[in-house]
Amino acid sequence: MGITLEQADKAIRAALEKAQELNLKMNIAVVDAGANLTAFARMDGAWLGSIDIAIRKARTARYFDMPTGDLGQASQPGGPLYHIEHSNGGLITFPGGLPIMGENGEVIGAIGVSGSTVENDHTVAEAGRKAIS
Amino acid sequence: MGITLEQADKAIRAALEKAQELNLKMNIAVVDAGANLTAFARMDGAWLGSIDIAIRKARTARYFDMPTGDLGQASQPGGPLYHIEHSNGGLITFPGGLPIMGENGEVIGAIGVSGSTVENDHTVAEAGRKAIS
Amino acid sequence: MGITLEQADKAIRAALEKAQELNLKMNIAVVDAGANLTAFARMDGAWLGSIDIAIRKARTARYFDMPTGDLGQASQPGGPLYHIEHSNGGLITFPGGLPIMGENGEVIGAIGVSGSTVENDHTVAEAGRKAIS
Amino acid sequence: MGITLEQADKAIRAALEKAQELNLKMNIAVVDAGANLTAFARMDGAWLGSIDIAIRKARTARYFDMPTGDLGQASQPGGPLYHIEHSNGGLITFPGGLPIMGENGEVIGAIGVSGSTVENDHTVAEAGRKAIS
Repeated sequence: MGITLEQADKAIRAALEKAQELNLKMNIAVVDAGANLTAFARMDGAWLGSIDIAIRKARTARYFDMPTGDLGQASQPGGPLYHIEHSNGGLITFPGGLPIMGENGEVIGAIGVSGSTVENDHTVAEAGRKAIS
Repeated sequence: MGITLEQADKAIRAALEKAQELNLKMNIAVVDAGANLTAFARMDGAWLGSIDIAIRKARTARYFDMPTGDLGQASQPGGPLYHIEHSNGGLITFPGGLPIMGENGEVIGAIGVSGSTVENDHTVAEAGRKAIS
Repeated sequence: MGITLEQADKAIRAALEKAQELNLKMNIAVVDAGANLTAFARMDGAWLGSIDIAIRKARTARYFDMPTGDLGQASQPGGPLYHIEHSNGGLITFPGGLPIMGENGEVIGAIGVSGSTVENDHTVAEAGRKAIS
Repeated sequence: MGITLEQADKAIRAALEKAQELNLKMNIAVVDAGANLTAFARMDGAWLGSIDIAIRKARTARYFDMPTGDLGQASQPGGPLYHIEHSNGGLITFPGGLPIMGENGEVIGAIGVSGSTVENDHTVAEAGRKAIS
């Protein structure tokens, strides 16, 4: 459904390269259009707790077809989506998850990265996404 | 901890190759010595339900440092480990999960494969394991 | 409630000693009269999957105030307690869990051991129980 | 994997001593480098609800290789990691969990303490960590 393993692999390679360039240790997950895990890689020494977060970021980005950080802004106390993080078995709503678009602009999957600051997570996810968009 | 991403990647590549050779669509997971996910790949069109099974097979093989099929034999009705599958959040006890040994014979991780018959799952897992043992 | 940490500790020490004597690598758990974890020890190199099993054996033994193996016999297909293992978040019904009695014969807790054959698991659990009964 | 039972035991003894000195009733958990439970002790009369919290604090500290309280500060509403507590089956993000370093500065495990104020939890965890660092 949507993204192929070849594409997912390409996204993960690009993300790994960016992470090495920035001297970061990352967990990187790619899900398909059905929000199901397609490919995953954990760099040596990357945070163990970020395995789950990378996968959730990828799923969250595909669940709502938007960057995870956008959901974070809308789900603050008083915000319109306050508590949305309790849905779907638990969402991650800070940056590092991005939907991936196909040639015709349709969402074919998503990438999630976790292991550093949310800015770095986002940067590495963006590198992965770019490689196949 | 134990297996490196480079090793895990090598195991997954070898398993993918074997699966293509046999014309199978597989999900392949590798965990480290702490039973934490290290790498994963789903071939295009592979069963969605096998994502979870491949990961659980890898974890189960590391949890007890033995092929998952061995646990299946011991946990039949009347067998000594009947019901063990209810532990650890749910085990998979049929073939397709194998521990991976390091140079000194210590367990450094495990591989789990799911997507076809248990015989094929085992064959593909074995190909992945051999590549780095 | 019931067993003290001093008693639980004594049981674990005795079980560790017996395991070393038999050259086994065990996970050993002690719960109190409320079936809540009181003490736990994992020997170096013991199966990771046996952490959860040792704790569940101890809880199962206290839940029904009987050796876990007794439940296993009663929960075979066709048996009177078939499927009891689905209760309480998942029971372990093979040997290695034993209730611990106080001075007046009342149950003050339970011990659960996992890491080898069910016979060895039982032997080590028995050593732990004896130390404080 | 990382911490040995002997080291974990030493950490727990030191934490128990500090708790007694401060007249506190604590639950103390130690996990290894794979975030798997290695040793645990509950003092007589310690809060039952703190069993789970102590274990989660230890796991959380190892998941992200930092004191649990640091995560708490970063996950306040408006903070960069808001909602991280929904990952990994539920994190505990207030003080009382600390990573434990080995001789070469690598993380070999973590300790989690729960049963009093977060300040006291942290103090007792620190005593445990110091004993083997």
